[in-house]
Amino acid sequence: MDAAEFRKRGKEMVDYIADYLEKIDERQVFPDVEPGYLRPLIADCAPQNPETFEDVFKDIEKIIMPGVTHWHSPYFFAYFPAASSFPALLADMLCGGIGCVGFSWAASPACTELETVMLDWLGKMINLPEEFLAGKDGHGGGVIQGSASEATLISLLAARTKTIRRVQSEKPELTEADIMGRLVAYASDQFCATLGTTPCCSFDKLLELGPICNKENIWMHIDAAYAGSAFICPEFRHLLNGVEFADSFNFNPHKWLLVNFDCSAMWVKKRSDLTGAFKLEPLYLQHHHQESGLVTDYRHWQIPLGRRFRSLKLWFVLRMYGVTGLQEHIRKHVRLSHQFEHLVRQDERFEICAEVILGLVCFRLKGSNELNEALLKSINAAKKIHLVPCHLREKFVLRFAICSRTVESTHIKFAWQHISQLATDLLKTWEQNHHQQKQQ
Amino acid sequence: MDAAEFRKRGKEMVDYIADYLEKIDERQVFPDVEPGYLRPLIADCAPQNPETFEDVFKDIEKIIMPGVTHWHSPYFFAYFPAASSFPALLADMLCGGIGCVGFSWAASPACTELETVMLDWLGKMINLPEEFLAGKDGHGGGVIQGSASEATLISLLAARTKTIRRVQSEKPELTEADIMGRLVAYASDQFCATLGTTPCCSFDKLLELGPICNKENIWMHIDAAYAGSAFICPEFRHLLNGVEFADSFNFNPHKWLLVNFDCSAMWVKKRSDLTGAFKLEPLYLQHHHQESGLVTDYRHWQIPLGRRFRSLKLWFVLRMYGVTGLQEHIRKHVRLSHQFEHLVRQDERFEICAEVILGLVCFRLKGSNELNEALLKSINAAKKIHLVPCHLREKFVLRFAICSRTVESTHIKFAWQHISQLATDLLKTWEQNHHQQKQQ
Repeated sequence: MDAAEFRKRGKEMVDYIADYLEKIDERQVFPDVEPGYLRPLIADCAPQNPETFEDVFKDIEKIIMPGVTHWHSPYFFAYFPAASSFPALLADMLCGGIGCVGFSWAASPACTELETVMLDWLGKMINLPEEFLAGKDGHGGGVIQGSASEATLISLLAARTKTIRRVQSEKPELTEADIMGRLVAYASDQFCATLGTTPCCSFDKLLELGPICNKENIWMHIDAAYAGSAFICPEFRHLLNGVEFADSFNFNPHKWLLVNFDCSAMWVKKRSDLTGAFKLEPLYLQHHHQESGLVTDYRHWQIPLGRRFRSLKLWFVLRMYGVTGLQEHIRKHVRLSHQFEHLVRQDERFEICAEVILGLVCFRLKGSNELNEALLKSINAAKKIHLVPCHLREKFVLRFAICSRTVESTHIKFAWQHISQLATDLLKTWEQNHHQQKQQ
Repeated sequence: MDAAEFRKRGKEMVDYIADYLEKIDERQVFPDVEPGYLRPLIADCAPQNPETFEDVFKDIEKIIMPGVTHWHSPYFFAYFPAASSFPALLADMLCGGIGCVGFSWAASPACTELETVMLDWLGKMINLPEEFLAGKDGHGGGVIQGSASEATLISLLAARTKTIRRVQSEKPELTEADIMGRLVAYASDQFCATLGTTPCCSFDKLLELGPICNKENIWMHIDAAYAGSAFICPEFRHLLNGVEFADSFNFNPHKWLLVNFDCSAMWVKKRSDLTGAFKLEPLYLQHHHQESGLVTDYRHWQIPLGRRFRSLKLWFVLRMYGVTGLQEHIRKHVRLSHQFEHLVRQDERFEICAEVILGLVCFRLKGSNELNEALLKSINAAKKIHLVPCHLREKFVLRFAICSRTVESTHIKFAWQHISQLATDLLKTWEQNHHQQKQQ
């Protein structure tokens, strides 16, 4: 395929994506396929000779779409949102077109510098303490990781290196293995200090944890993967109070800030803590600006060597939505979750299982776990909407997460009426069975 | 931005990318900017109100492009290639449009199943032993990682878990920390067993290493990040002989197989070695098909939880190029590297520093490291072409890597004439200086 054909096919693909997203509510949110569905539909091995774009294109609807769970459907209420917006899609196209690999400043200066500045923008939007920003000559700064798991792993490794070095300087007789065997990572069952846990969006008390960590010389990492985006709204910023005690912090714009996956924003107070742990300097990656101390080489901040030009997505989204546009998006989702909460609370058969703070509602039928498992099964079997469950203190709970960019009040009402009707049907058969069991 | 505007802007972006790639040879391959160039060009913080697409779009040429190192320029001979092709760009657009997160089978069955089958296709193309393939009921299989570093880390962690469990079962009195302190990872200065090292594209002897690893119960991981793509050509496949002894193997289609970053293909013989080390089963990620043993949940195979629909890129590229098209691409690059090698060998001032096997030529002026550092400096200062150096046995060596998809014989000739002329100029002043120093 040459550039001329790409112009034609690229435009067809743009239309296909626009059609897909415009009419996504007409597709069944969860697919009908069974495990192994795809293999029999395609060849056993790659073709020897080229196929045409048409050959491949027609297989998208035939082979791929029947097996897609539509995360951007307004009937998708499972997991947490996967952010998506048109500005982010455009930026990602540009990222692919430029196709640079930004492991060092010299490998593509724009890639490194835009990232540093975008993470400063984002840090200011959530009112992060100055120490986390790079500015012109700060000691801190931000980096885009692929996922919150990577940010947490990086923090853990940096903390380990830092602690080992500190202990070694105090007790030179100890070997690294001796020290390693005695290191302790403190965590709850959601791991590190978390703002907005996945099961029920609960918040750790940073103002209690922070001073203890600082006093005891413990690296404090805060993961706000989902909830972090909400901190751009002043009314939610108080949830981040205590971040000033942390060594590192991350949240995922790719969850709730309209930036397509992957874009996990991570900040540290001392960039030397990361570069100290991960520095890698083969000659082929050195460049004469390194010595100046002026440049950032992001390969020292992450596990992979290669990296895409992901800050373009932030640049496009932050500018084309503006802070107010993004705040509106967050506030709409929170408003819709409270709408759903309100509907649940009006129905005495149900209970709300955790305080609704952001875009997640945890609820269940009053009654046994089996009953709630049956309800979830009937919801997901009907495939009108899609939810996933969680466990809260031994209880089986249904999670209703506001996900799609295009979800509106009507979808929430529909979802509730649907759930309510399925509950009525279920309770009828459940009581009959119960009655029969009693008679036997 | 709504779907209607996306249709318009998306098509403009397609044209912009096509223009960029069609005329990339007219741009200076390495930018003129100095560290810190970008910050003064853009605002200090994100705008409160939305800006238009035009506002952002005009800043691409004004702010971004002046700081881009053009990896796809036919004058770019640095590092290793970053793969790029039009089919891969189209597939990545689709990946963004669908925007699913494929951490489990249920999260989007097509995302998981296409990946498994594509890795089988790719495995067959390089003639991997059957044990590495998933097939319908194999114990092995492939997964797409973000980078070779991640594949290596995953292997290391899986190997560690496996070894600790084995030792614990033999000696239950040992604690995990005791065992951990005694574990040894064997590696050369390029780390694990490597096919095609970055400095000079050398190859470890798998047929010697493999049997020792197997005998001593050592996990063997093979990294063929760059070179792996070449194994689709029968004439290079012998370089992979011995892979049958390995536990895990990876290479990067995003380097040399025309699949845009990121796409690092990794295979294991026993998928249970990975899932045993990384299994993570909170309720909200469980689905009823898990029990069947029929499904793959890729979150157990990697560090991150989230993952993009990256196999679409493989699907588009393998089908639209066909095996023969991809073989042609590899063979062209190897032919061009031999063309450059031939030109260097004809010039008695120069020497070739490592056998030219694939697309990399390591060469230098006969003489001191300082002389060669000066030559590289003059090459990169002229900015007609771009190279990076390496160290081979204490010697400072220039790496000439065939990178761009569109590089042709004329570019190689130009590059050589340019280098040769710069060497002539350099040697003249160098000898004058030398002469003057002697006289003083």
